[in-house]
Amino acid sequence: MQRDLTFLSIAQAGRLLRSREISPVDLVKAALFRIERSNPELNAFITVLADRALSEARVAEKVLRRRESARLSPLVGIPVSLKDNYWTRGIRTTAGSKILSHFVPNHDSDVARQLRRAGTILIGKTNMHEFAYGITNENVHFGAARNPWCHNRMTGGSSGGSASAVATGMCFGSMGTDTGGSIRIPAALCGIVGLKPTYGLVSVEGIVPLALTLDHAGPLARTVADVEVLSDAVRGGYPRGIVPALRPLRGRSKGLILGWPKQYYFDRVDPEVQQCIDAAIKVFRSLGARTEEVSLPHLADSADPSTNIAVAEATQYHESQGYFPARAQDYSDDVRRRLEQGRNVRAVDYLAAFEVKRKVAKDFDVAFESVHAIVAPASPIPAPRLGETEIFISGEKEAIRSAVVRVNRPANLSGHPALSVPCGFTPEGLPVGMQIIGPKWSEARLLSIAASYEKATEWHRRHPLA
Amino acid sequence: MQRDLTFLSIAQAGRLLRSREISPVDLVKAALFRIERSNPELNAFITVLADRALSEARVAEKVLRRRESARLSPLVGIPVSLKDNYWTRGIRTTAGSKILSHFVPNHDSDVARQLRRAGTILIGKTNMHEFAYGITNENVHFGAARNPWCHNRMTGGSSGGSASAVATGMCFGSMGTDTGGSIRIPAALCGIVGLKPTYGLVSVEGIVPLALTLDHAGPLARTVADVEVLSDAVRGGYPRGIVPALRPLRGRSKGLILGWPKQYYFDRVDPEVQQCIDAAIKVFRSLGARTEEVSLPHLADSADPSTNIAVAEATQYHESQGYFPARAQDYSDDVRRRLEQGRNVRAVDYLAAFEVKRKVAKDFDVAFESVHAIVAPASPIPAPRLGETEIFISGEKEAIRSAVVRVNRPANLSGHPALSVPCGFTPEGLPVGMQIIGPKWSEARLLSIAASYEKATEWHRRHPLA
Repeated sequence: MQRDLTFLSIAQAGRLLRSREISPVDLVKAALFRIERSNPELNAFITVLADRALSEARVAEKVLRRRESARLSPLVGIPVSLKDNYWTRGIRTTAGSKILSHFVPNHDSDVARQLRRAGTILIGKTNMHEFAYGITNENVHFGAARNPWCHNRMTGGSSGGSASAVATGMCFGSMGTDTGGSIRIPAALCGIVGLKPTYGLVSVEGIVPLALTLDHAGPLARTVADVEVLSDAVRGGYPRGIVPALRPLRGRSKGLILGWPKQYYFDRVDPEVQQCIDAAIKVFRSLGARTEEVSLPHLADSADPSTNIAVAEATQYHESQGYFPARAQDYSDDVRRRLEQGRNVRAVDYLAAFEVKRKVAKDFDVAFESVHAIVAPASPIPAPRLGETEIFISGEKEAIRSAVVRVNRPANLSGHPALSVPCGFTPEGLPVGMQIIGPKWSEARLLSIAASYEKATEWHRRHPLA
Repeated sequence: MQRDLTFLSIAQAGRLLRSREISPVDLVKAALFRIERSNPELNAFITVLADRALSEARVAEKVLRRRESARLSPLVGIPVSLKDNYWTRGIRTTAGSKILSHFVPNHDSDVARQLRRAGTILIGKTNMHEFAYGITNENVHFGAARNPWCHNRMTGGSSGGSASAVATGMCFGSMGTDTGGSIRIPAALCGIVGLKPTYGLVSVEGIVPLALTLDHAGPLARTVADVEVLSDAVRGGYPRGIVPALRPLRGRSKGLILGWPKQYYFDRVDPEVQQCIDAAIKVFRSLGARTEEVSLPHLADSADPSTNIAVAEATQYHESQGYFPARAQDYSDDVRRRLEQGRNVRAVDYLAAFEVKRKVAKDFDVAFESVHAIVAPASPIPAPRLGETEIFISGEKEAIRSAVVRVNRPANLSGHPALSVPCGFTPEGLPVGMQIIGPKWSEARLLSIAASYEKATEWHRRHPLA
């Protein structure tokens, strides 16, 4: 019974809750059982809120009894988690750091409030790369998050605990943050769905920032439909009226057109990952889609500008809070090194980076005049081993950080929505994620594209505990 | 006849035009006569558009004959000028620089287009500090603008040519730009009215930028009413619907309350200027206003942050255009020195300056919960002599630049609207300007406050040629 409950979709669980075949208490107990069994090894949570979640579940039980089904949010009684950089009133919020290890916020982040209002049950705060400032989730303060598909491998990060918790049924969904791929990377490496929405769609108010002009908040879940229901709940504050209508594609009335980037995204990809993406494209073609080459010329020179923006904004935030350099010794080496890097960026280079930012966004906008979405790997490699810092891709050595950020950062820079959806496994059994990038504010269409692919495949049905 | 025409208010001239007592050709000829007589000495214009203005006047003449008065813009047939950093299609736009001395834009700035559509006649492009990057208007490439009240003194800048041209009847109004006082300073030193509107109210699209987050475009004219009619024409593109309604002042139903800043603005002011402001306050009191002390604590530490923002953004713009350092020798020494300064600002300091920016804006917002507007000097000194770089204020030596920018930059940093209105003369006969600062988007109220003062005084009736 427990096993079935934790791997239900949110819609399935919701139906059982509303028909009173199960109670929110059952769901929470099932999730807590998973946590009890797997978390000591996987390290997905920094804080588990067992008692609190159970008492919230009893409240949800009453709500479900009192109100008509039709008037209930689809998330009432659903156990979810938040990455530990989302402020939660009265609940410790460490941002994965030593510096904030005892910090208890006096108010909720916007997203925490929105999820609470939607009736979700907060089961815990998930592990993350320290201050979201890295992609390995090897956290020296709270322990590395371990990949549920292979425990000596990384979850990816910085939202690694969220991805692992969702993949293993410890919760139904989680909210992560993505400044250079921190939602999409762990979603890909842990075999689940992760959405980085359009810049500004989901409020980052009350989230410990990394780099404010690149920071995005978004959901991770096991299926596209689950991501969509979470996404709808947290975009609540956004006035739908000002979401611009999508322009129809020129001269084409029907049939999905997927953009295939000639350059950049597929320049250095592990052959096993490439194979999965190629196969996914075939699936799309079998569904009636066609592909068209797209050109994104300014992405090639966007790495340094992206870095200038990210490191300068991060360092300025940590300086403004009095954390850095005052408490330099309390950071892990990799984070401290990057904070030091941020001090050396010149304002003129920081500002010049915004010109590149505009050009990259323009590249995507132009491409989306002839295609509905662009496909790319969500990570050019499957989950690396814990402790590794470099990787060989087709015989060429590259830093893991640089490889995975490379295919993710452009959408942070441009602000376009991008998601990762499971698209296969390596022969070793490690999940592979396909990235789909769409026009701004096209989340609904992006999710429907991903859903049509998901429906035609079985990858989302495989679970690491099976 | 000529003399009377050039010193009419815009409303007066408009009435004569619409009743066909005069024609736009008469107005243009009168303005050109003034230019011919005074510009060789005063150097208010970089480019005079005599033929073009006359042919525009003949077109306006036809418009005035054809259309009913009620359907005409109040600006049809009115000769105006633009600071030479506003792009004008087919008309040289030098920005007061050697680098752009032969630059002819292929399209209009938004404001040039708005004024053309409103029916104004562009009589010329005015002298300015090189690239708007200074407040003396001592331009080595096109000659210093000379103060019409005393020819061996500065107009102030950077919109010095605009202020001088308006003060001497060479045109009825002019558009300037203000990044650290560049509208208000020359308005004050030349004895006219200048408005720096709320940040964003008037489009800066197509204006050669100085520092984009501090740049404001706004009108200069001889009376408050003239400024208002110009202001209405150039805010045309702004959707009035989103201008937030002003909150009523707490617990006070009527009677103007003027804020008197305890600190900062009156810390170092020339006694002759102080005397004029004190007298102006008495005028306001005689009109039923009362004053209340206001506290603006964060202004004291805003100088360095302001400078960091200004110099970094300026240098980055000049670098992005390939002007600097490539053509370093083509800049005047003072501008080159500041461009060099901009290269050394660190991104973290640039970003930290925006925290101060927010605090300064908050100071004003809080003050405006208890007062309608704040009064201050528009310049702590009357027009300095050409060639001077330092000045004594009450026996204390200060750089001229630092003194005049000090009282102006806070409103650039905060984005609040501020205007300068004539409030007297020194015993030597140099004009003094009073600055009035208001809540964001309160231009209408700010102008009505200034108008009530203007109506009670005679300063605006004195002209330098009288």
